[in-house]
Amino acid sequence: METDPNTFSAASIDRVSAERRDPGWVARAERDPRARALASSGGRMALSGEPSPLDFVLADPQPLEGTRPVLLGLRDGAPLFAVEGDEPPAGSQWSGLRELASTLSPAEAALAATAIAIGNWHRRHRFCPNCGSPTDLAEAGWLRKCPACGADHHPRVDPVVIMIVVDEPGERVLLGRQPSWPQGRYSALAGFVEPGESLEEAVAREVREESGVEVGGIIYRSSQPWPFPSSLMLGFACRYAGGDPAPRDGELEDVRWFARAELSELVLPPRLAIARRLIDEWRGSSPS
Amino acid sequence: METDPNTFSAASIDRVSAERRDPGWVARAERDPRARALASSGGRMALSGEPSPLDFVLADPQPLEGTRPVLLGLRDGAPLFAVEGDEPPAGSQWSGLRELASTLSPAEAALAATAIAIGNWHRRHRFCPNCGSPTDLAEAGWLRKCPACGADHHPRVDPVVIMIVVDEPGERVLLGRQPSWPQGRYSALAGFVEPGESLEEAVAREVREESGVEVGGIIYRSSQPWPFPSSLMLGFACRYAGGDPAPRDGELEDVRWFARAELSELVLPPRLAIARRLIDEWRGSSPS
Repeated sequence: METDPNTFSAASIDRVSAERRDPGWVARAERDPRARALASSGGRMALSGEPSPLDFVLADPQPLEGTRPVLLGLRDGAPLFAVEGDEPPAGSQWSGLRELASTLSPAEAALAATAIAIGNWHRRHRFCPNCGSPTDLAEAGWLRKCPACGADHHPRVDPVVIMIVVDEPGERVLLGRQPSWPQGRYSALAGFVEPGESLEEAVAREVREESGVEVGGIIYRSSQPWPFPSSLMLGFACRYAGGDPAPRDGELEDVRWFARAELSELVLPPRLAIARRLIDEWRGSSPS
Repeated sequence: METDPNTFSAASIDRVSAERRDPGWVARAERDPRARALASSGGRMALSGEPSPLDFVLADPQPLEGTRPVLLGLRDGAPLFAVEGDEPPAGSQWSGLRELASTLSPAEAALAATAIAIGNWHRRHRFCPNCGSPTDLAEAGWLRKCPACGADHHPRVDPVVIMIVVDEPGERVLLGRQPSWPQGRYSALAGFVEPGESLEEAVAREVREESGVEVGGIIYRSSQPWPFPSSLMLGFACRYAGGDPAPRDGELEDVRWFARAELSELVLPPRLAIARRLIDEWRGSSPS
């Protein structure tokens, strides 16, 4: 299926994956007078307000706080970097990515998500997991190299399956809620893919673990980068195949069926989330 | 679409994700007289030969070399562990997982792949990437905890998109070859998903980077765990939308169109690989 891109997934940028491996090319890009940078701090983006909130607070891609800039890519031929710092650049203030997403264009939201995701990774991966030594940033920020043991470390992308379960006549959908959520909030079940399983196995396992329900007819719908801190959401719809839903593994405090008409009484996830899209796609479809 | 599982993706095991977080439960599982273990060493599995090559070389899940056992889960109610060591257990010898896969049942191949994947992760992630300190194994091997900074680290699963590109009338498929491959070998294009992109963006980017070709109509087909060392292969088919194929980023030495009749002259990837499945699905379909 080909559909409109999800929020955070419409970056109109050339990532120049080959060129960024060339330190000379990267150094020239940093000195390019057209170079710009997005600034972030611990998952928040710097916003300037004008002309577009993100466009682009730093004319100078030099790092804010001694971190090296990460090359996001070329945007209309101009290098665009991401930098991290404690203080926002002059004339801007920090803003959370979730709040920010609705005020940005799809392409800007995707660039912001990329900057946040790669920043999250660098902040938590300064040392070599193989030998414990401090690592060096390489390939314009898309690799960390260990000078002690020689290991290369690529950014983490953690695949997460997220799924709605629909009962056989298509009249009800299975949703759950976590204890920490606002009152009335229900959403799709979800969980990390583990080593040694396919996406479809992960979908069936997570639904079984969280609700005791068995599923079949597992259909991929769409995907969404979710940089909180480094997830890749993989959205599925599946068909109920047995079991009575009940919270099982301690992650959910309630999990149950909702008819279409009942959804309006719930606090559904925000429109930027793939969970909401999965629910809305089902809600808008005809009962089968 | 629901299809037969790919090789390495049919594990008939209960991963007991909730129970394995309880150290007392795990200790009891280790002492369970029904407990068994699969032994591996640097990506190779121990094979005994009888009655099934993998079933199961260690009656005792105690570690071979001071590593702690990892709980794969419950199999017919009995705990099954994975252990790592330098010497194979008595009566067995090491065998590579790729060679092994065709001699095992689908369920055994999936368990072996899980054991190899989690073993690969522990071997390369003994230190905390956040602070550099040695980390401790927790949750029966599905978590590493840092006693110094308190960070939790979950196993890495690296998503990789792999895709065939089909020209508009469906008569030709785009395949490439890497310089290191045996003569005549061609396969589907592939590459790691990067932070801040959806699967569909990654598919389009990788095809563009490796071949200069633009694609549309990106359709998910199936997925496969690929523990060499920690990949999750996400298989797609997509439609040609422009460009003349030519090697671009140095990863491929040739990339070009093949008609159905030409495939028999190629050395295609082995049947256990999702690349072969994508090619065979296209080959067996009618030109559109």
